[in-house]
Amino acid sequence: MTMERLEATRAEMRRRGIDALLVSVGSDLPYLTTYRAFPLERITALVLPVDGDPSLFVPTLEAPRVKTTVAVVPWDETDDPVGRMAGLLPARGTIAVGDQMWASFLIAFQRHLPEASFVDAEPLMTSLRVIKEPGEIEALRDAAHGVDRVADELIDVRFSGRTEREISRTVTDMTLATGHESISFAIVASGPNGASPHHEPSDRVIRDGDAIVVDFGGRVRGYGSDTTRMYCVGTPPDGFEDAYAVLHDAQKAAVAAVRPGVTAESIDAVARTIIDDAGYGEAFIHRLGHGIGLDAHEQPYLVEGNDQVIRAGMAFSIEPGIYLPNRWGMRIEDIVVAVDSGVDRLNRSSRALRFVD
Amino acid sequence: MTMERLEATRAEMRRRGIDALLVSVGSDLPYLTTYRAFPLERITALVLPVDGDPSLFVPTLEAPRVKTTVAVVPWDETDDPVGRMAGLLPARGTIAVGDQMWASFLIAFQRHLPEASFVDAEPLMTSLRVIKEPGEIEALRDAAHGVDRVADELIDVRFSGRTEREISRTVTDMTLATGHESISFAIVASGPNGASPHHEPSDRVIRDGDAIVVDFGGRVRGYGSDTTRMYCVGTPPDGFEDAYAVLHDAQKAAVAAVRPGVTAESIDAVARTIIDDAGYGEAFIHRLGHGIGLDAHEQPYLVEGNDQVIRAGMAFSIEPGIYLPNRWGMRIEDIVVAVDSGVDRLNRSSRALRFVD
Repeated sequence: MTMERLEATRAEMRRRGIDALLVSVGSDLPYLTTYRAFPLERITALVLPVDGDPSLFVPTLEAPRVKTTVAVVPWDETDDPVGRMAGLLPARGTIAVGDQMWASFLIAFQRHLPEASFVDAEPLMTSLRVIKEPGEIEALRDAAHGVDRVADELIDVRFSGRTEREISRTVTDMTLATGHESISFAIVASGPNGASPHHEPSDRVIRDGDAIVVDFGGRVRGYGSDTTRMYCVGTPPDGFEDAYAVLHDAQKAAVAAVRPGVTAESIDAVARTIIDDAGYGEAFIHRLGHGIGLDAHEQPYLVEGNDQVIRAGMAFSIEPGIYLPNRWGMRIEDIVVAVDSGVDRLNRSSRALRFVD
Repeated sequence: MTMERLEATRAEMRRRGIDALLVSVGSDLPYLTTYRAFPLERITALVLPVDGDPSLFVPTLEAPRVKTTVAVVPWDETDDPVGRMAGLLPARGTIAVGDQMWASFLIAFQRHLPEASFVDAEPLMTSLRVIKEPGEIEALRDAAHGVDRVADELIDVRFSGRTEREISRTVTDMTLATGHESISFAIVASGPNGASPHHEPSDRVIRDGDAIVVDFGGRVRGYGSDTTRMYCVGTPPDGFEDAYAVLHDAQKAAVAAVRPGVTAESIDAVARTIIDDAGYGEAFIHRLGHGIGLDAHEQPYLVEGNDQVIRAGMAFSIEPGIYLPNRWGMRIEDIVVAVDSGVDRLNRSSRALRFVD
């Protein structure tokens, strides 16, 4: 797999006039080598010249853990790894740099190679990564099934009287128990906290009348899960259920609108129109969704202004939300894959508002 | 605190001829604003002109969670945040960029401001962050006490017959139970896996005769803990205890060598000489230690070639190791703070080899 992906990358580099690729932290590296680098001050990076052999530079102390078919070049604590890598790069060429490489390393490379042109590798890597292979879709599906099970089992968990942080820990434990190798986030946002889409679980105690946003995900065989479901203790706040019906319709309609050939922004518009028409347009403060794969967020982004055409094999979230500051928030999120016949919704747990103790 | 730190930063920028500072993901941002950005594709960044007001650009959907005294500028999904920030930056000035900013954003800023000079903000920010304030040292101490308790309580945990991954989960749970707000890593490396310093906990079942490296840490009030202790099931491998005595001496001697005025590399040399003299020099494959604070790894680095002078208030790890591939590995790690009178060792759990079931 690694060799085929490296060959495909080289072909795409030729097409784009890129002389060398330099990827470090983030998901391009595991995509190309199966190895994920630590986001630390000791650089790990793959140097891939368009016509030369790839070299994976790794700190000596991390070399024992690297399993890859690419040639590994360990560097010692007293080496200058950037200088050594710069020696393999074209002094006057175009060098594509992985989007998440640390700025300090890019600046060091630019100092070593002042006449080279450094460009963002994201368009190159996205062109390869955005269409998922069957094995990648199976990993996404297994990840989705894991979090679906947790979402369904959560109805038997007591929310009332416990803190958001405690529920978040419970969600984490349950998700790891499904076979996820790691958890990336477990947002539990109750009552007014639900109005903050990326709320950090707090010591707020959940109580009667709270609606609770639970948005969580992790990784299975390197690929992400990400789902959001809504729970409620006791009677929901005034107006909540009406808004929820709107949100549910919008999410369902957007999922149904997915198929090869439509634009990313048109799917966003489907959900947004329904929410707008019901009077909640101002309260839907984020894009409809994001791609998912080795990265939790990647292309395609379902957002106004993105006329990228959806193709079979693209995987992304559909997650409209309605947020009323100081009152409540709500979101429903599924991961879907565009397929020739339309859409394959990977998350299958109930999207209904679930009442819990 | 924020305002004083921003003022100190501006003074240091003036001294260094830096016209503006641009910090995003990583720990410079919480140091300056108390807010930590998500490492995601939606940029969060502080723009600090040397003579102007600071602005913290935040995605609109994340704005509700930001608590800071700095002015927050939310940007919407259809905005161009890099373009808006570039408008506040000097077109021909020197702009210091936080070391962990994504390369893709730096490249975008460079495209917007082709005549500006972009430099790594790390030296500037380190000059401020490397000397810890009393409140920062107290957070480091509380964090150290938490992991010490776990290290001591681990002697009552059964290792034998369980996987590294299970023990890692146990360590995680125990650390969170001490009041850590998050866990950063929990390395459990048993038997031959111990020879890989950054080993990822696996499904290997721990058995009689295994020595086990347990290296773990997290955060308390934003500040890191990081300690390594050694455990053993049954009789240790041949030669292990002799090597352990050497390692223990080396670690202790290096801790004792810490005081203001010595160089970072001289402390590394103290441990290395002892390990070298005992014949294990080739097996000590990494530097002696790293600074710690808001980042798990930061300045000062205790490594050959770093003649940086230790000053009171610097906090760092002392963690020599001996690694014999395919056989075993060992490491002992404490966090220490240089103080006027010498050294304050924050970790106080026993450094003896602990025998467990």
